[in-house]
Amino acid sequence: MIKTVLITGSTSGIGKAIATLFASKGCHVIFNGLENNGAEIAQTIADEYKIKHLFFPVNLLDRLATKAMIAKSIETFGSIDILINNAGIQFVSPVEDFPEEKWDDIININLSSAFILTKAVWHSMKQKQFGRIINIASAHGFTASPFKSAYIASKHAMIGFTKAIALEGAPLGITCNAICPGYVHTPIVENQIENQMKAHGISRDEVIKNVMLGKQPIKEFINIDVIAELAWFIAQDSSRTITGASFPIDGGWTAE
Amino acid sequence: MIKTVLITGSTSGIGKAIATLFASKGCHVIFNGLENNGAEIAQTIADEYKIKHLFFPVNLLDRLATKAMIAKSIETFGSIDILINNAGIQFVSPVEDFPEEKWDDIININLSSAFILTKAVWHSMKQKQFGRIINIASAHGFTASPFKSAYIASKHAMIGFTKAIALEGAPLGITCNAICPGYVHTPIVENQIENQMKAHGISRDEVIKNVMLGKQPIKEFINIDVIAELAWFIAQDSSRTITGASFPIDGGWTAE
Amino acid sequence: MIKTVLITGSTSGIGKAIATLFASKGCHVIFNGLENNGAEIAQTIADEYKIKHLFFPVNLLDRLATKAMIAKSIETFGSIDILINNAGIQFVSPVEDFPEEKWDDIININLSSAFILTKAVWHSMKQKQFGRIINIASAHGFTASPFKSAYIASKHAMIGFTKAIALEGAPLGITCNAICPGYVHTPIVENQIENQMKAHGISRDEVIKNVMLGKQPIKEFINIDVIAELAWFIAQDSSRTITGASFPIDGGWTAE
Amino acid sequence: MIKTVLITGSTSGIGKAIATLFASKGCHVIFNGLENNGAEIAQTIADEYKIKHLFFPVNLLDRLATKAMIAKSIETFGSIDILINNAGIQFVSPVEDFPEEKWDDIININLSSAFILTKAVWHSMKQKQFGRIINIASAHGFTASPFKSAYIASKHAMIGFTKAIALEGAPLGITCNAICPGYVHTPIVENQIENQMKAHGISRDEVIKNVMLGKQPIKEFINIDVIAELAWFIAQDSSRTITGASFPIDGGWTAE
Repeated sequence: MIKTVLITGSTSGIGKAIATLFASKGCHVIFNGLENNGAEIAQTIADEYKIKHLFFPVNLLDRLATKAMIAKSIETFGSIDILINNAGIQFVSPVEDFPEEKWDDIININLSSAFILTKAVWHSMKQKQFGRIINIASAHGFTASPFKSAYIASKHAMIGFTKAIALEGAPLGITCNAICPGYVHTPIVENQIENQMKAHGISRDEVIKNVMLGKQPIKEFINIDVIAELAWFIAQDSSRTITGASFPIDGGWTAE
Repeated sequence: MIKTVLITGSTSGIGKAIATLFASKGCHVIFNGLENNGAEIAQTIADEYKIKHLFFPVNLLDRLATKAMIAKSIETFGSIDILINNAGIQFVSPVEDFPEEKWDDIININLSSAFILTKAVWHSMKQKQFGRIINIASAHGFTASPFKSAYIASKHAMIGFTKAIALEGAPLGITCNAICPGYVHTPIVENQIENQMKAHGISRDEVIKNVMLGKQPIKEFINIDVIAELAWFIAQDSSRTITGASFPIDGGWTAE
Repeated sequence: MIKTVLITGSTSGIGKAIATLFASKGCHVIFNGLENNGAEIAQTIADEYKIKHLFFPVNLLDRLATKAMIAKSIETFGSIDILINNAGIQFVSPVEDFPEEKWDDIININLSSAFILTKAVWHSMKQKQFGRIINIASAHGFTASPFKSAYIASKHAMIGFTKAIALEGAPLGITCNAICPGYVHTPIVENQIENQMKAHGISRDEVIKNVMLGKQPIKEFINIDVIAELAWFIAQDSSRTITGASFPIDGGWTAE
Repeated sequence: MIKTVLITGSTSGIGKAIATLFASKGCHVIFNGLENNGAEIAQTIADEYKIKHLFFPVNLLDRLATKAMIAKSIETFGSIDILINNAGIQFVSPVEDFPEEKWDDIININLSSAFILTKAVWHSMKQKQFGRIINIASAHGFTASPFKSAYIASKHAMIGFTKAIALEGAPLGITCNAICPGYVHTPIVENQIENQMKAHGISRDEVIKNVMLGKQPIKEFINIDVIAELAWFIAQDSSRTITGASFPIDGGWTAE
């Protein structure tokens, strides 16, 4: 039976990689994202793999729109079988100057949206006695860096939320797990590399190894396709005894 | 030199035990709490130990009042040397029925208030090159139970926040640690015991051992005085190399 | 290029499931195990998938034989690309009565053999700038149960060993990860089920749910094929940034 | 009632600091250590605080002598109330060259001796329905560094052992906890500082901050007196609900 998957933040980066892989496997895919050309991105993937899809340019701070996205998706496909809470934002500042509104946005988008979405899909998953909720957390779900207090709080919270939902889902055929990536190469990171090269007068390679990946024993950005493959693995029927777990893909970051 | 300590939620339970111990050691104590007779509770402790004190019946959901509490305290005592983020609320519900406003309140009181307060005291602590921030988290900062998704998310977040703030405070003489209690005997718990006795027709002792403390290998509620003593230990000048740590006092709960 | 994998304890249970999957993918497989018909088991799998194989009925307490197994394997296949430290033993006893020789055997087989084998394969992996070391630990690598002190110590140690080796392997193309299963259905467990049924006069289903899987929120034994699939996922070239990580497959056990 | 405490490795460093504090509180102290002038060190502390004491220059690799030490101590004082497993050794080497005998010694002294001693004192503690077992582990009980595979395995194991023993002791009045220090200033460290100064031509301060304490956000060695004070806190009667816990004192090392 064809599975329906909703992935937040799926018009770029990790979310797009996951959407692409799940599309290639024949899933119905519900895209969400704020890219200007998000509809086009979704359509292109859907066309390539000849799948049914929906696209919602919903800002997850807007809870009414978020819940409407779920309602419309379930109305269209009959269920959401797999929910991937991937959307996230970051802000870097010493705590003394950290803007309250940035703190609130990070907590709301990185954490509370996962609650809103989980609550909204629960009835559908419970009825089917099948569900896979996969939270894209971070190595920062286990360890800290200075000046990222909101992000770290939100990602640790995501690990706890994952466990709590796993326990509630255990008798219902619903699993909940987290994937915790290290440093992933994104357009934002690309800009940072170029800025660091200019600022320090050092080579691209030195910036990557010593600045960007200073905390990662393996001096290579995390390949987003591997994250997608692990999500696919967790989403299988045969993975029904995997729950409440957090899977680091972080080049050894949290081992040190 | 006399230290000034602010303890949220300090007119009852763990917070009151901490306030009492710190008062007995001669600290200036800033009380906060929503008990009707909070002012009287604070006054009684202050009188007994002949200390200076302030009392603020501030609801931590009110950020303006929270920040005003800090400003007034620093104006009065010159600094806040020790901040103990103790106030917390709980709500129990399956995720499907969990009210959004309860989720938001728990995240705001248990987590975001600690950010607001830390941000507000930071400048004062940085200037003195001394600070102790102690977050009262929970065994639920490490492990989960069903139907407590918001609380568990907030307490895991507190562990992450503790680490991030510890890293920022490390070069400034400011430490940040968490204490993670198991089951503590509070008035709410007392009501639950009596309800369970009636509901199941079993003895008080059976309710405590098998229901209330089912997850705790040591079948005894956590003594709140020990929590206060550990907070006092962490607050010492000589504890300056203790930071970013979480200290379980949970009767073995998280060991199993 | 065909990969060579050595799996300890691979003539039964989890190890055999891993060996079978890796054989089905075309790997050269080096079997190890103490079953009387181990050679036959290995031959049957090798025949089915038309792979090259070796079988060593080596007791991992015998370090000379263990090292000779590695030497002979490298001589035969040119390298060992993937090492899966799976063999393990258990003994249950209150610490007061725990036999010293049982403690030593558990530490030696569950932990020290992984060191001996890792040390022995390292030069080969380093030369190829490729290696995958996968340690089959346990949920008991993170949490405890009474009367299993040696096993729990050995499995926690395995998690630490995994991290240390990951850091050493990071610049060399060698990754090291752990998989941490919950309760797996084995012949030993089958005997325990029958004994418990007789002892308590309860049904098979009750024994499994309340006694054997009392700590696992998902009331089903862990499917060993999923463990094998995760090992296969980690062993891929594309998983080169996954290292130092521990992957629970435990039905929610360590989430609670 | 006067408590009797046995501390392994108590004629220098952390162990000596603990012995001194417990002596100052009036405990009977059983010293153990391999310093040439160990007897004199023990006698000096005993004289200063007018306490009863014993001294055993037992190598913990010698299990018969270890068990005889316990038997003689219980015969002398009637019980051992507090056991502090502090003795430990280190060896640094890439895994490829790590001598097997060094691996075995580290596992035996850092880990298995704690088992031998716990087993040996258990009956006495059980009879009194009181016991405090405190294991001095390390930040390396939670995180890794390259080239210290044996030490890291042994310290992770100690954390697991602590949890298992806590669960067994819970109904018996026996608690078991771990203290996990970061970098402590010892004579060995002092030599390393001087060697690094010469090798790199940098100042003492630079060696300490950037080399020795590179992983510790707080750039100061851990004060051993604080470790002793925490051990004393855990040993109190009133700390009876603290068990199975690990207490980091590591300058923020494991938070990052």
